[in-house]
Amino acid sequence: MENKKASESITIMTELVLPNDTNLFNNLMGGRLMYWMDIAAALSAQKHCNAPVVTASVDNISFENPIKLGNVVHIEAKVTRAFTSSMEIHLRVWGEDLTQQYKYKSNEAYYTFVALDPNRKPRPVPGLLPETEEERKLFDGALRRRQLRLILGGKLKPDDATELKALFVKD
Amino acid sequence: MENKKASESITIMTELVLPNDTNLFNNLMGGRLMYWMDIAAALSAQKHCNAPVVTASVDNISFENPIKLGNVVHIEAKVTRAFTSSMEIHLRVWGEDLTQQYKYKSNEAYYTFVALDPNRKPRPVPGLLPETEEERKLFDGALRRRQLRLILGGKLKPDDATELKALFVKD
Amino acid sequence: MENKKASESITIMTELVLPNDTNLFNNLMGGRLMYWMDIAAALSAQKHCNAPVVTASVDNISFENPIKLGNVVHIEAKVTRAFTSSMEIHLRVWGEDLTQQYKYKSNEAYYTFVALDPNRKPRPVPGLLPETEEERKLFDGALRRRQLRLILGGKLKPDDATELKALFVKD
Amino acid sequence: MENKKASESITIMTELVLPNDTNLFNNLMGGRLMYWMDIAAALSAQKHCNAPVVTASVDNISFENPIKLGNVVHIEAKVTRAFTSSMEIHLRVWGEDLTQQYKYKSNEAYYTFVALDPNRKPRPVPGLLPETEEERKLFDGALRRRQLRLILGGKLKPDDATELKALFVKD
Amino acid sequence: MENKKASESITIMTELVLPNDTNLFNNLMGGRLMYWMDIAAALSAQKHCNAPVVTASVDNISFENPIKLGNVVHIEAKVTRAFTSSMEIHLRVWGEDLTQQYKYKSNEAYYTFVALDPNRKPRPVPGLLPETEEERKLFDGALRRRQLRLILGGKLKPDDATELKALFVKD
Amino acid sequence: MENKKASESITIMTELVLPNDTNLFNNLMGGRLMYWMDIAAALSAQKHCNAPVVTASVDNISFENPIKLGNVVHIEAKVTRAFTSSMEIHLRVWGEDLTQQYKYKSNEAYYTFVALDPNRKPRPVPGLLPETEEERKLFDGALRRRQLRLILGGKLKPDDATELKALFVKD
Repeated sequence: MENKKASESITIMTELVLPNDTNLFNNLMGGRLMYWMDIAAALSAQKHCNAPVVTASVDNISFENPIKLGNVVHIEAKVTRAFTSSMEIHLRVWGEDLTQQYKYKSNEAYYTFVALDPNRKPRPVPGLLPETEEERKLFDGALRRRQLRLILGGKLKPDDATELKALFVKD
Repeated sequence: MENKKASESITIMTELVLPNDTNLFNNLMGGRLMYWMDIAAALSAQKHCNAPVVTASVDNISFENPIKLGNVVHIEAKVTRAFTSSMEIHLRVWGEDLTQQYKYKSNEAYYTFVALDPNRKPRPVPGLLPETEEERKLFDGALRRRQLRLILGGKLKPDDATELKALFVKD
Repeated sequence: MENKKASESITIMTELVLPNDTNLFNNLMGGRLMYWMDIAAALSAQKHCNAPVVTASVDNISFENPIKLGNVVHIEAKVTRAFTSSMEIHLRVWGEDLTQQYKYKSNEAYYTFVALDPNRKPRPVPGLLPETEEERKLFDGALRRRQLRLILGGKLKPDDATELKALFVKD
Repeated sequence: MENKKASESITIMTELVLPNDTNLFNNLMGGRLMYWMDIAAALSAQKHCNAPVVTASVDNISFENPIKLGNVVHIEAKVTRAFTSSMEIHLRVWGEDLTQQYKYKSNEAYYTFVALDPNRKPRPVPGLLPETEEERKLFDGALRRRQLRLILGGKLKPDDATELKALFVKD
Repeated sequence: MENKKASESITIMTELVLPNDTNLFNNLMGGRLMYWMDIAAALSAQKHCNAPVVTASVDNISFENPIKLGNVVHIEAKVTRAFTSSMEIHLRVWGEDLTQQYKYKSNEAYYTFVALDPNRKPRPVPGLLPETEEERKLFDGALRRRQLRLILGGKLKPDDATELKALFVKD
Repeated sequence: MENKKASESITIMTELVLPNDTNLFNNLMGGRLMYWMDIAAALSAQKHCNAPVVTASVDNISFENPIKLGNVVHIEAKVTRAFTSSMEIHLRVWGEDLTQQYKYKSNEAYYTFVALDPNRKPRPVPGLLPETEEERKLFDGALRRRQLRLILGGKLKPDDATELKALFVKD
């Protein structure tokens, strides 16, 4: 299996905020946005591995600016790094008021997907080749985020998370 | 404003997995589940503060067992702790195959909501009173999770996260 | 097949009224509520018989108080009695305005479901064991409601509906 | 306010059964059908009174034949009688398999709607003028069904339901 | 295969404009209307050929009057002519404000469907028999519209479109 | 009002075909695709004119290849030319099977939108500046397609459609 470039997995999704997507402030509900992000991330992961995938985990998401009814939601998803059978996807979300020509950042997030074979067992995926400065930075950070996920999921002891530990302990 | 008990905020949601909620393996899509969890958490937060709320952030979610088409989704949400104008909500999710009498854990998560006044500015919320052993444990952990959120959101330096630092540095 | 307790079939559903669920008065449409009640009742019936079920009939429903946009819908369903292959489910529905801390009754209803085998033929279900005072009252009334259903469906003559006749004819 | 003919209120609705409308037997869910019937009945009532209406009650519905995925749902609604500010609507539902040229009755039902003024108070509606034999029969039966509704809703004593009592007590 | 009458394919669809169907002017979105028209046309085509069908093409649609939130959408579909394995369906759409007793034309359109056999290959359909004056006019025009479709689809040279050419070239 | 470049209006939409979007062949329904295209085109038009828009007309659409359940829908929309207060948008649609790495053209279409002022009256829009060879070709063809629309809408006599007439009459 040959490595694939990060840029091959780019997925751009554009959605319009309709009444049923909003809360009583006429802003997009967080859950509805996470639903769209999940689909964008799944498509990006599938572009990378050319196999069916399922959501394994979602990292901390912080909602910065509300997206209003009638505004546009822009979602951009790209694979940052591939592990044995899983892929981390980075998502960036903007809102846009086309009438006022005003585009604003809503949030960003990391989703992790696992590729499955027809028996629903994890299957190997190609490695990821970062090319730009930003892709390399995301690629490097992926290891640290993965350790954090494993600690938070109770599958790794803080002491063994060498990458992450370095953030707190400076010799 | 008087403190309120954790148990007053309990919200139980039951949903049926329909065809449009599923991926090609006939399992519930992760994004659809996060959508339902967002609504359950919002209702739990509103029960606590009796004011409109918006999603501020979602902590790491790990999807353990897929929930199948036709199975039931059980979501239980409860406020763990209140800060000035925000509340942390703990969610637990199970799937259930009623025909096979088989109930299985799907995942758990922490959502944070902020209460807003009519001008959409944060407004104070009542404190939370934990009563059971489990509620107290969730209450205590909330501070550590909050520090982690602030670090991950770039609003706190690791050195100042005393609660969290203790996980990595033992004197 | 052993009898099962009424309490084992309790199903609690919580829904949020969104814009598309409402009429021009911004109140929940009756049909949308009956849709949710149908799913809650089906899940309750399946909990009792652990087999697939289909809606057989719905008794008179009277809509007392409208549930408003943004309010919460609480549905509680419980099996009242089992017949050979059918089950009667009692549903109670409340609306709740979480901001105003105001909870109000919306309506109650009886749905009847039939359990089916893989060939889509009716299959026997366990008997129901009422325990509380209220469960016994619902259990006793189920026979009378069943006669009314059969008369209204043209499958029973009024003269043979001894339970029901007693309401009108006092000797 | 002049009386209006029954035929002026006829509403014909045609729907296609899609995957999300079905249960695990690939048949239309009862609740989804009641949702469509509610809208058809509301439109028929509005045709009669030319005012906004809300669902007041739904009489016993019995589901006779399941409607399959990909089949067509035919709903025909017509006002049977008008009372001070309420209207009874009769609905008939058929399924149709267009490929097999097979049309079958699914169920029939009576919905009751109330007309509201801008302050959401009941407002008077025109009387109904039945013309055909069948319309007259439905018009006459409406009184008996109304008494049954009032008894079932606890608003009328069986002894005062003279129309209905005659069914059980023959002097 | 015997010819079938145009009137046998009539399909009447009635829909209510809900919040999620509307744009920021509270009017029905054009795309949502085309979705309903597609289903109405498909049902009309299936009535004619009693076989599964798929959308082949849609002719120019011009949206004349917007249909408002809470108004009714009336769609009437009828087959105008059958070719070897395809059928042209004529659709007429009205909006109606039931409160104001005001019915207005929204648009009309021609959809073309192809009948498929179980291997998804085109299969022959019965001929169409126009009966009324209007049906004959639609039947005759169908040939000209078909030539226009073929030219616009790049499958016919303008010079060979004799019916259409006559519109521009008068000898 | 300054002219704007065609490239400024590009809108890319990516959707996943879910069960409820499909017909009985498990292929995307034509009407569902036209719904998504309408939204993509509306966003493209709004990017150009920075004002609310409504669908005025849709040109002939021919559906070439069906898009399968679970496949991806790619829609690309771009303004081709602006008239006084209307804009023509060109849409291209592909399906993609990410597992098989197979991307195929589904169809292309022209939608026309009108910009509205707050009183819902047409308002002027900026002119369009084509830059690439392809954009210039689309810009030139827009006049001919507009004449065809006007003829088909009964608002222009064939004789006055000089651009279009040239297709049929060569001196």
